[in-house]
This record gives sequence, C-alpha cells and structure tokens, in this order.
Amino acid sequence: MEKRLDPPLRCSYTGANFDTVGVNPVGSPKLSASLFTDLYQLTMAQAYWQSRTTRDATFSLHFRKFPCNRSYYVFVGLEDVLDYLEEFSFSDADIEALKYLGPFDDGFLKYLSELSFSGEVRSMPEGTLFFENEPVLEVAGPVIECQLVETFLVNQINLQSMMATKAARTVHAAAGRQVLDFAARRTHGTDAAVKFARAAHITGFSGTSNVQAAAMYGISPVGTMAHSFVATFEQELDAFTAYAASFPDSSIFLVDTYDTEEGVKNAIKCALEMREFGHSLRGIRLDSGNLLKLSQMSRRMLDDAGLPFVQIFASGGLDEFAIESLVASGAPIDGFGVGTKVGTSEDAPYTDFVYKMVKYAR
Amino acid sequence: MEKRLDPPLRCSYTGANFDTVGVNPVGSPKLSASLFTDLYQLTMAQAYWQSRTTRDATFSLHFRKFPCNRSYYVFVGLEDVLDYLEEFSFSDADIEALKYLGPFDDGFLKYLSELSFSGEVRSMPEGTLFFENEPVLEVAGPVIECQLVETFLVNQINLQSMMATKAARTVHAAAGRQVLDFAARRTHGTDAAVKFARAAHITGFSGTSNVQAAAMYGISPVGTMAHSFVATFEQELDAFTAYAASFPDSSIFLVDTYDTEEGVKNAIKCALEMREFGHSLRGIRLDSGNLLKLSQMSRRMLDDAGLPFVQIFASGGLDEFAIESLVASGAPIDGFGVGTKVGTSEDAPYTDFVYKMVKYAR
Repeated sequence: MEKRLDPPLRCSYTGANFDTVGVNPVGSPKLSASLFTDLYQLTMAQAYWQSRTTRDATFSLHFRKFPCNRSYYVFVGLEDVLDYLEEFSFSDADIEALKYLGPFDDGFLKYLSELSFSGEVRSMPEGTLFFENEPVLEVAGPVIECQLVETFLVNQINLQSMMATKAARTVHAAAGRQVLDFAARRTHGTDAAVKFARAAHITGFSGTSNVQAAAMYGISPVGTMAHSFVATFEQELDAFTAYAASFPDSSIFLVDTYDTEEGVKNAIKCALEMREFGHSLRGIRLDSGNLLKLSQMSRRMLDDAGLPFVQIFASGGLDEFAIESLVASGAPIDGFGVGTKVGTSEDAPYTDFVYKMVKYAR
Repeated sequence: MEKRLDPPLRCSYTGANFDTVGVNPVGSPKLSASLFTDLYQLTMAQAYWQSRTTRDATFSLHFRKFPCNRSYYVFVGLEDVLDYLEEFSFSDADIEALKYLGPFDDGFLKYLSELSFSGEVRSMPEGTLFFENEPVLEVAGPVIECQLVETFLVNQINLQSMMATKAARTVHAAAGRQVLDFAARRTHGTDAAVKFARAAHITGFSGTSNVQAAAMYGISPVGTMAHSFVATFEQELDAFTAYAASFPDSSIFLVDTYDTEEGVKNAIKCALEMREFGHSLRGIRLDSGNLLKLSQMSRRMLDDAGLPFVQIFASGGLDEFAIESLVASGAPIDGFGVGTKVGTSEDAPYTDFVYKMVKYAR
C-alpha cells in the first residue's frame, strides 16, 4: 500500500495557506457571462456603431456536416441561451475590463453599458432531433446585438447538443436498461459536467452521480462506492458492512477491487445478513474484466443465494458501442454507468455548428 | 441574402420575456464548488464517518496510459485546485441541497457544514512535462477530505493538462510563428474555454480571442473580423474602410468572404489609403482554401504594393498537424488562429488520470 514518490514532487503546499499566483488584473471577479465573447464581436460592434451600421439582421444557427458516426443530432441548450439573453448586459466590472483590454471608444463603452438584448429568438424545442443543414435556432434583432451573442450561443448549443446526441445513442443502445451518468470527473470542466448531466437526463438517463447537477436540475443522484473505499478497510467484507450500516436499503457494492468472485461472495454474505435485519442490498457493480461473463456468473451466484432482487450494474470505459454488444449478448446487466467516453463524446467531440447571417435590412 | 425557414421552427421567444422552465429545485443558486462531486464521495464519507474510519490517507494523481498520438503531457491545473481547496466548505445552500437529495444523516451533515480542507498537497509546478505513470500531484490528509475533493481535482487536472498538451504541440509545430486561441465557441462550455485560454497562454500562445479569459488571466486579447461583418456592408471595401476607421492601427482584414484575390486587392487599397493618414494595416486573414498557395499569392501582392509590414494570418480547421505541414512548405504565414480541433483536443479528448490511494494510516 505504501508508495513513495521518486523523485519527489517539486512543490509543496500545506492546509489553507497556499501561495497562489495573482490573476484577474482588472481587480474584480464579477465579470458577467456577457464578457464571454470573442474580441472581434466587440471590435466589430464598435465599427458597426461608429459607422452607423445598426439595422436589424437575422442569424441562423445550423450544422453543416455531421461526423461519420452520426445520423442525427439532438437539440439541447436553448434554456441556457434564453437565460443568457434575458440577462445580457455589461456590468461595471465588464466595462472596466474592456477599458483595460482594448482600444475601445468611450462613447461605444457607454453604449455597451446601457445595452440589453432586444431581439427575437425562434427555436426548436429542446430534445428535438435534427439533421444536416437544418436550422435549429434563429436570432433576429439589431445586428450589433446578434453579433455580440454569437460566441456564447454557438458554445452552448455545440456543447449541449453534442452531449445530448451521444447520450441519446447510449440510451438507445441500452434498450430499456438503466443508464447512469458517471462522467463528472472526465468531462471538459465543470460547466461541461453539469450540462452533460442535464442533456443526458433529457435523453432518458436514470440519474447522475454529479451532486451539483442533481441539485441544480432536480435529477436523481446516483452512486455506488469506489475501490479506495474498499481498500481503506482491512477486509472487503468490513467495507461492505460499514457501507450497509450507513445505507441499509440503497447500497450498491463494488465487487472487483481484489477478486470478483470473492467480491460477489462477500456481497452475498453481507446481503443475507442485511436481510435478517429487514433490509435489502440494492445491487453490485462490476467495473473491470469481461463484463458479459462476470455478469452471468454474478447473476447465477445471487440467484442461487436467494437474492434475485439484487441488481447488477456495470461500468468501466462503456459507450454505446460496448453497451450494444453487451445487450446483444444477453448480459444480465440491469444498469450501465457511463463516464469518460460518453461525457466527452469521444468519437465526435465537437460539432460543426455555424451562426450565419441570413438577412440584413438594407 | 434572404432565406426563410421551411418548415418554420416550432418555438418563438421575444425580447426579455422568455418562458423558461424552472430549474434548481432546492431554491438557491448559491451552490458552491464543493458540491461539484460524485454522490459516492459523499455517501462513502458518511460511511467513513459513521464507522470512525477517519485516519490520514495519501492519494496520488497520475496517468496510466497515454493515447497513441502523445509522447508527453504538460501539467496544468494546479492553481484552480489550490483555490478550490482553500475555499473548500459546504455552504448553507449546499447542506440544504444535500438534505433534499440524499439519505444523509443529520450528524454527518453537521460535520460537513463545519468541514474545511486540512490536508497537504505536493505537486509539480504548472507547465511541467510529465510521462506515463509519473505522479503529478499528491494529496495527504484525513481520508474523508481526500475522497471528497477527488472529482473536482481529476476534472480540472484532466481538462487543463489535456488542453495544455494539445496547445504545446501546436506551439511546437508553429516553430516560432504566432499561435492565437480562437477556440471559445467550440470548447466544451465556458469553463473549458477560459481554462483553454489560460493553458494555451502557459504553453506559449500569443493571445486569445476570449475576452473573459483575457480579463481573468491578463492574456493579450486578439481578433480580426467575421464574414458576417463583411457581408453586412454593400461592398467588401466599405467593410474594410469602416473597420479601419475604428481601429486605424490594429486592423486585420478577413479577405476570403467573396474572392480571396479581390479581397487582398481591397485590403491593399484600404491599406494604402490608411498609410496616407499615417496609419498602417496590421494584417490580413485567410480562413479557407489552399492556405499555402493563397498565403504565397497574398505575400507577393502585399510586397509588390509596398506593404511588407502587413502580416498574414491563417485560420480554419488548423491543428498541429496542418500547421506543421504549412511551416514545412515554407508558407509565408506570420500567425495561426486555432479553434475547434485544438480547443477540444480533438484527437485525444480525454486523459486517463486516476486518483489512487497509495497510503492509509492503519
């Protein structure tokens, strides 16, 4: 269990006394989402404003070409776009930041400080399937406003539709079995993680391990236990017993920390004891090895022990391709926990969304 | 220019009167970063706490296996990890959310409400290159605290190191030419976008188009103009003139909206006029077509017009592979704008980081 670093790492930090490098040169952390934009949106806005090129335009958000593994996409992200547009304005801190950053005109900055979004949005409902070159959302309004919001709109619709699509494919492959979001630790940051939980929920996932997302969106929180938990106790059985004492009716034991067959035996021992006290083990989780064979063995062992109600969950590098294959093989798996590959849409990690001006009032 | 949707989109929203679906069932948006964790970290914490399994442990963050396209990785993400650990605590809103979400014990929730991070961190400095199985960061402290912070730590180190690595490869390929971050609209959300700008800055990018990231981290903001800007004016030359009037010494004209050769001619016309007023065009941008041939043609035309100081920037689906090829061909390109493929680390969009317990005080 003991392992020392060789060579030793080169920095050391203790308790709440970290020596962090100063960031945020503009002296305020209160930057708003409106500042999440490409610089050229703001410089073009100034050039529009100074040249009085300020009539109404219409921009269309659509997708030029799908990646080879995708025959449809699922539109998600509208709610965040609408929230953003409703709150669109430049705070005092944003204006200070712009003074610091760029060659902006004082009159233009005053104009920005009084700006809100006055345009219109037409959109598909979230959860709609769409295809190549099909517009999903249109923004109409003064050309400056339409332009300033492009970066955020494309970012969020790209992110959430890409994720919803990968999630929908996974739900489809699971053919009625539960799919659970375990992706928080490998998504591209915290924004991506909570948005994935929401997008997955919309497409039919049964729950998320992401507590923040569960709280934000009212999604069922789910979880089992980690290998480190099992390893912290002297014996695997001690770990199961301790967990069952805390969660007598919702425990799912991770059985592959040492030897999976022994792990299932220990889970059965604990489950039988729980039953004597009127409780029941919810499930076991397999996280490595041949999931088909191990799930068949586990199901047989659990049934033979009179525990047909104990469910089998599988995880470990799963995506829609692996799940489809397990389902086709008849693996007795009740639920799939998916993480990395699905949460990053690994085989198609971006979309080709463009936000194109389709009309300008001359 | 006009294009109507057929069939029309199915929702319509106007101005600041959107009918958004209610979220956040716990009634408060003030959830802290500490709630960004997998549910099982919290259920295991309760089981540790109730079974008095609360001694010190050491966890090591390392990388099991590199993807086939990577021979090194660059460690980035420490600063956010340290900020997070310094502020680690559960707010009243977090505790309310946990009461709503889970089968948590009141005594355990009281313990959580008083918790802060008391452990130690040893780490590589940010920007360090590392290799397979080399620990990059160690956390030591009470096992509950080490476990609770896992999800955030893995998420941020995974994200930022993956991005820094792709960025470093791109800077290397550019062989001394400028590399600019244009990735904001296609990264996986807003967190990923600002972290990419920072990671790219650490590895040697010359600037970012992301205004929020520029303000947060003191990075040079950069930008040119969009095709929609050019299309908004009657003539391409009008667009260039309007932009030059607003930014007489920092303009970069996008020359490929209609016909690139004509675009360069218009840029030259405008640049010569700017010179009469004592100003100078900074550059032109090529965003499509054969970038080698177009850059050679543009350089010749600019030089022949007596404008050798006007720089040539290229963009459009570039990554380290495309840049390496352009550099090897001797393309006269002064700077590369990179977006989608680099910002999502498209060929290796996740890492295999694990956070493994290497010591527990029995």
